Amino acid sequence: MSVVEDVPTPQVVIDQDVLDRNITRMAANVREKGLRLRPHAKTHKVLQIADRQLAAGAVGLTVATIGEAEVFADHGVDDLFIAYPLWLTEAQAERLRRLSTKARISIGVDSVEGARTVGAALNGAAGKIAVLVEIDSGHHRSGAHPGSVVEVAQAAHEAGLRVEGVFTFPGHSYAPGMPQQVVEQEQAALAEATELLTAAGFDVTRRSGGSTPTATLTGSSVVTEVRPGVYVFGDAQQLELERCAWDDIALTVAATVVSRTDVSFNDIGRGSPRRLILDSGSKVLGTDRPAWATGHGRLIDHPEARITALSEHHATVVWPEESPLPALGERLRVVPNHVCITMNLVDDVAVVSAGQLVDRWAVAARGRNS
Amino acid sequence: MSVVEDVPTPQVVIDQDVLDRNITRMAANVREKGLRLRPHAKTHKVLQIADRQLAAGAVGLTVATIGEAEVFADHGVDDLFIAYPLWLTEAQAERLRRLSTKARISIGVDSVEGARTVGAALNGAAGKIAVLVEIDSGHHRSGAHPGSVVEVAQAAHEAGLRVEGVFTFPGHSYAPGMPQQVVEQEQAALAEATELLTAAGFDVTRRSGGSTPTATLTGSSVVTEVRPGVYVFGDAQQLELERCAWDDIALTVAATVVSRTDVSFNDIGRGSPRRLILDSGSKVLGTDRPAWATGHGRLIDHPEARITALSEHHATVVWPEESPLPALGERLRVVPNHVCITMNLVDDVAVVSAGQLVDRWAVAARGRNS
Repeated sequence: MSVVEDVPTPQVVIDQDVLDRNITRMAANVREKGLRLRPHAKTHKVLQIADRQLAAGAVGLTVATIGEAEVFADHGVDDLFIAYPLWLTEAQAERLRRLSTKARISIGVDSVEGARTVGAALNGAAGKIAVLVEIDSGHHRSGAHPGSVVEVAQAAHEAGLRVEGVFTFPGHSYAPGMPQQVVEQEQAALAEATELLTAAGFDVTRRSGGSTPTATLTGSSVVTEVRPGVYVFGDAQQLELERCAWDDIALTVAATVVSRTDVSFNDIGRGSPRRLILDSGSKVLGTDRPAWATGHGRLIDHPEARITALSEHHATVVWPEESPLPALGERLRVVPNHVCITMNLVDDVAVVSAGQLVDRWAVAARGRNS
Repeated sequence: MSVVEDVPTPQVVIDQDVLDRNITRMAANVREKGLRLRPHAKTHKVLQIADRQLAAGAVGLTVATIGEAEVFADHGVDDLFIAYPLWLTEAQAERLRRLSTKARISIGVDSVEGARTVGAALNGAAGKIAVLVEIDSGHHRSGAHPGSVVEVAQAAHEAGLRVEGVFTFPGHSYAPGMPQQVVEQEQAALAEATELLTAAGFDVTRRSGGSTPTATLTGSSVVTEVRPGVYVFGDAQQLELERCAWDDIALTVAATVVSRTDVSFNDIGRGSPRRLILDSGSKVLGTDRPAWATGHGRLIDHPEARITALSEHHATVVWPEESPLPALGERLRVVPNHVCITMNLVDDVAVVSAGQLVDRWAVAARGRNS
């Protein structure tokens, strides 16, 4: 990708051809199974990518915050799911009421108190907002126990909200060997919650699950929609989980070799023989690193190299013994561990197609944490 | 801090009274020892904080990138040290030339090739840029071996750059029990480099070291200036290194309890008895977590609680058995592990004094990675 030679580094570069392929493939996979696709836009936060997802058949978008919903609603996206157990202040309720005049809005709740508070804060507008009860399917983050789903749904209903269904985030699928097992837990939890809700008289039309590691493994026996995010770009976590291939990587960070050490001077046992320093530090790659990851990201074209440490503007790369150490000034392309973090660190990205710079896209919803 | 009840969360809040005390104390400490203070502005990236540091006697600022230098130079800061081994493209050289017309600029180099490239790229303007050779004092990131300093300085001199001295970043001080030992390594490395340079005929007027863990331990026998950054705010890393006290914490993230679990339903061994979820996830706290840290940040007013996991919009907090679990909707204040990362995630911050909201400051140099 010759354009990488010309940009100031570190620079996030999106390969539009690979991006489009990823978007098309996931849409086809989900459609073939009779599921609906509601991609999580927190991954990219980019209007142009949302447009591509919707054009490929997504029924709407998932977002994490009211702020993200506002950005996409203002762009004209008319169906947005804030997949989060919102706790509304008066000011936030007002924003949600305004949102509900622009788009079909659904939100999460995971507690009786949460449902009551949301309903009360929304006041007369509660009936315009659909609610999905969040279920914990084993990740143990937010989400009600499936056995508590009826009381939460009942509270939401009594607070004037429209209960549409249930959702879960099977985040414990982010570990080697876990995705298949976690898909089963996800389906079991959603099935249990659905059965209880149906018995209590609720019409459970949405059963929402899935994330990038599990979305393509999910069947349609229980789940009705999936919410993968990372699949648009791929990243080093998905590579090492074997949930994407090197050819699926659409986002890299162009970086420059600014320092290198070809011999060790190991005075306190922490030196490493052949290392180099890239200018892509944690302020562009992020420091997300699960225990099973082999490093802080991977290098395209150098799969044996490992990023052993990150500081804000330095990535320390240990180089395999058998390969020549890149020269100072050489440009390398880093695959971040977690693309959602990287996109949230930059204001815009370079877009390439067939190796040429074709566009720059703003990260329109960057930093919209509330 | 009653203002924390009113802001949308997550929200970075700076206590101006504590900030001013931290700035004054470090300035006095450094001055008493006859050292010069050149605070690292990558920590805060805020013009109003830079003004306070300079008013308290800082001789200039340290920054990490040309982009950060541009923001502060445009604000009128007239002495800026880019403490980084820059590798210049033609476009970056042009920016550095422009910078040198607005402020006294010094930069780092750590290799013969780097020095030659920088000198050649700067062309006629090389003489306006001062150079400090970066030395590795044991952190093993960037920096030349002290024994190689003369050849790097010679290359810089021959390339037309003005060699002013040496600098080091003793980053391995960020570990319990390390700061005192690392101060000694820092001084030994700078002393060795200075001796060699002096013998080779260089006039070494700047010997720059120090960071928040070591700055107050550094004496003036070798070092002439220190570059602490984090001291303005303090953070959970400094707390746990015992390099600041709870009363020194000037930056917290106001967060809302959005989910809670008072009993366990431990089906796969990962559940925890009493946990709550805050809306301050990794997109505001960052995921920097050294192996010795007790969690992903600390809670003011609840020192026994631990943040055991972070995802983008969720902080999982395990609550001590003996304390009542906060209610849903309650506001808590989180001390991030690493404030430099937190500041780079937000566009502006709320400023309080005596518990009242008094200002909002823009994070003017946020995202200036190149």
